[in-house]
Amino acid sequence: MGRKKNIFYAQSGGVTSVINASACGVIETARQHRDRIGKVLAGRNGIIGALTEDLIDTSREKKSNIAALRHTPAGAFGSCRYKLKSLEESRAEYERLIEVFKAHDIGYFFYNGGGDSADTCLKVSQLAKSMNYPIQAIHIPKTVDNDLPVTDTCPGFGSVAKYIAISTREASLDVVSMAKTSTKVFILEVMGRHAGWIAAAGGMASTPESQLPIVILFPEITFDRERFMAAVQHKIKKFGYCSVVVSEGVRGPDGKFLSDQGLRDAFGHAQLGGVAPAVASMVKEDLGVKCHWAVADYLQRSARHIASKTDVTQAYALGKAAVELALKGRNSVMPAIIRTSDSPYRWKIEEVALSRVANREKMMPRRFISRDGFGITASCRRYLKPLLKGEDYPPYRDGLPVYVELSNHSVAKKLKADFDLDR
Amino acid sequence: MGRKKNIFYAQSGGVTSVINASACGVIETARQHRDRIGKVLAGRNGIIGALTEDLIDTSREKKSNIAALRHTPAGAFGSCRYKLKSLEESRAEYERLIEVFKAHDIGYFFYNGGGDSADTCLKVSQLAKSMNYPIQAIHIPKTVDNDLPVTDTCPGFGSVAKYIAISTREASLDVVSMAKTSTKVFILEVMGRHAGWIAAAGGMASTPESQLPIVILFPEITFDRERFMAAVQHKIKKFGYCSVVVSEGVRGPDGKFLSDQGLRDAFGHAQLGGVAPAVASMVKEDLGVKCHWAVADYLQRSARHIASKTDVTQAYALGKAAVELALKGRNSVMPAIIRTSDSPYRWKIEEVALSRVANREKMMPRRFISRDGFGITASCRRYLKPLLKGEDYPPYRDGLPVYVELSNHSVAKKLKADFDLDR
Repeated sequence: MGRKKNIFYAQSGGVTSVINASACGVIETARQHRDRIGKVLAGRNGIIGALTEDLIDTSREKKSNIAALRHTPAGAFGSCRYKLKSLEESRAEYERLIEVFKAHDIGYFFYNGGGDSADTCLKVSQLAKSMNYPIQAIHIPKTVDNDLPVTDTCPGFGSVAKYIAISTREASLDVVSMAKTSTKVFILEVMGRHAGWIAAAGGMASTPESQLPIVILFPEITFDRERFMAAVQHKIKKFGYCSVVVSEGVRGPDGKFLSDQGLRDAFGHAQLGGVAPAVASMVKEDLGVKCHWAVADYLQRSARHIASKTDVTQAYALGKAAVELALKGRNSVMPAIIRTSDSPYRWKIEEVALSRVANREKMMPRRFISRDGFGITASCRRYLKPLLKGEDYPPYRDGLPVYVELSNHSVAKKLKADFDLDR
Repeated sequence: MGRKKNIFYAQSGGVTSVINASACGVIETARQHRDRIGKVLAGRNGIIGALTEDLIDTSREKKSNIAALRHTPAGAFGSCRYKLKSLEESRAEYERLIEVFKAHDIGYFFYNGGGDSADTCLKVSQLAKSMNYPIQAIHIPKTVDNDLPVTDTCPGFGSVAKYIAISTREASLDVVSMAKTSTKVFILEVMGRHAGWIAAAGGMASTPESQLPIVILFPEITFDRERFMAAVQHKIKKFGYCSVVVSEGVRGPDGKFLSDQGLRDAFGHAQLGGVAPAVASMVKEDLGVKCHWAVADYLQRSARHIASKTDVTQAYALGKAAVELALKGRNSVMPAIIRTSDSPYRWKIEEVALSRVANREKMMPRRFISRDGFGITASCRRYLKPLLKGEDYPPYRDGLPVYVELSNHSVAKKLKADFDLDR
């Protein structure tokens, strides 16, 4: 083994429109330090790639392809939903990771994900220490849910927020055009099972100068059908129509998700429901007005065509910072965005100990939600505004964005044993 | 009354992301001919504005606001769903139109809509002739459904097509990233109750050079559950996942819409269903794989942020052409796009007699749908490709597109009688 260690990089959990920008930051920066860093090896399908020794040699990818990661959504090396549990419960898996790292001369473990992967990252570092294997574990934040602590925001969130704000503004203009004789209520279902950050972004479609009638249903606020209908009715009276942005995580007084309606078709088969159609049915029943509904689902988190420039810039910068932290010898840390000014937006990157990040969720502060529970406050606007700012258009060919497909060359396996995944 | 007659302009039916670009073409071109044309008066909420003498004086709108219509989605003067029937059934309404036109010195009737409004336009011209009132009726094509005959395409369609193709490509990249451990089938519901033009656009996300596994469900093809599942299964086997683009108008062998599932919640209340969740439930039941689904609804037809440049250019050009036809003394005509070359795309505008347009729907030719019924053919690609081409980004402020809100000054009423709308 030489002195130059390789980086292992993996994408974790639900992908975003800018997670590849972080990968781009990692790989481009590592390539600038060939004197001290070996190769960047990526896990095929995330951590599963490490467990099964299915590694991708990014050094065989040409420069222009790596550069194109900056404008390519989703996970270019594949991601996965595979949670490692405690050191006790998942010991075999943690040990297998170290074994694979050893075999491939990996000195840096870069894990690009949300809260769970921050925790995994911390545990890998702890186990390696107890096994006397020298590794620097660095977590790169990513999650559309925006629920990681310490960091001002999580890459992926700003672009979803921008997509939802724009979509809400555009659909609202459509509805107001037609409201005289047609649809009066439009309902958009957005992601966010626990925290209402994405739903809050819908409120940005309206500004104090140019108001649109928007009612938001946050997962933080228990759904009250009567109060909700009164709020919608009030907007219809004043504006002629109403747009509703509803989080998938909204629950009724019984604690059950609104989307969990126990739907059955005419033959008694169970149906997959959404919260948007459920709310639309209630509005139709209670107010008797024509409703339309949309469910953004994956469109919102993959919409690289309208990504926020702030978000892309930060995603790249955090990937770059991870390499710089590695070069400084840091371990068990995460580079975080620290906001130093709202307007103009100023931010810097600081390292945070993983112990401060793992297993802690950042919820929406109640002061970001208006008193009636259906809107956002001025302080929420101040927080969100810079995160949506700037456009960062991908290149186009024949009317469609050109996203790169990497060749993803495999690294030859060195271990004899196969590894059975837990699931 | 002077010799300079006014134009009456109205938007009809479902709005699009570029119908205001046609309005912009009308108003800017009319303003260049002040020597021969009076004002452009717009109907507030479409033809209802004419019937109720609720007219908007666009001459009071400043130049920059009119220019901004080019990049503003939806209907800036309001539109409506209000169909005039035959001359016999709706005679009072047609006569009322002429009465309002007379009172406001209107010599040109510009109706911006789909097949129904082409028919209305024709009838207004016929009745005016029989009543000896001189009017030139000109129809400006618009419809996301792309179902008007003669014209190569309808403004509004190209931009929806672009949005659906981009969204399908982006969501597919998301799904393939996660397919190893999570979602294997993604289903996107798109508009198009009668014709599969919009669904076909989903197929453009995949190209012969860079293939994505996409299965399309067209309203033209009767849904065959077994064959559909086999097609999805085949894609999953080959690519690890499958994206499905389903038209809202797909029907089963019983002739009923797939979305019409007779859904009931746990309390027996009827629920508004979509076709996407219905198909997702079937996939889950038959193939046992994890599904996600999205319903684009109004987002697709209002997505001005990613409008097709071809579409915007044609929408404007058709508005301009309407004024030029008016100046040439034409009546009962529609300016249409005539394609003269696929690649490079060349087109020109020609006038078409309304009698050739009214009450005729242009369906997808069967040769545009692949033999198995689940994809598009090379000739469909040749047709669609230029329509998606080019980007035409709106201006942004604070991360959001700046869309104009007109002041829409009312014209003083001249008639004493109010008019009771039929519905």
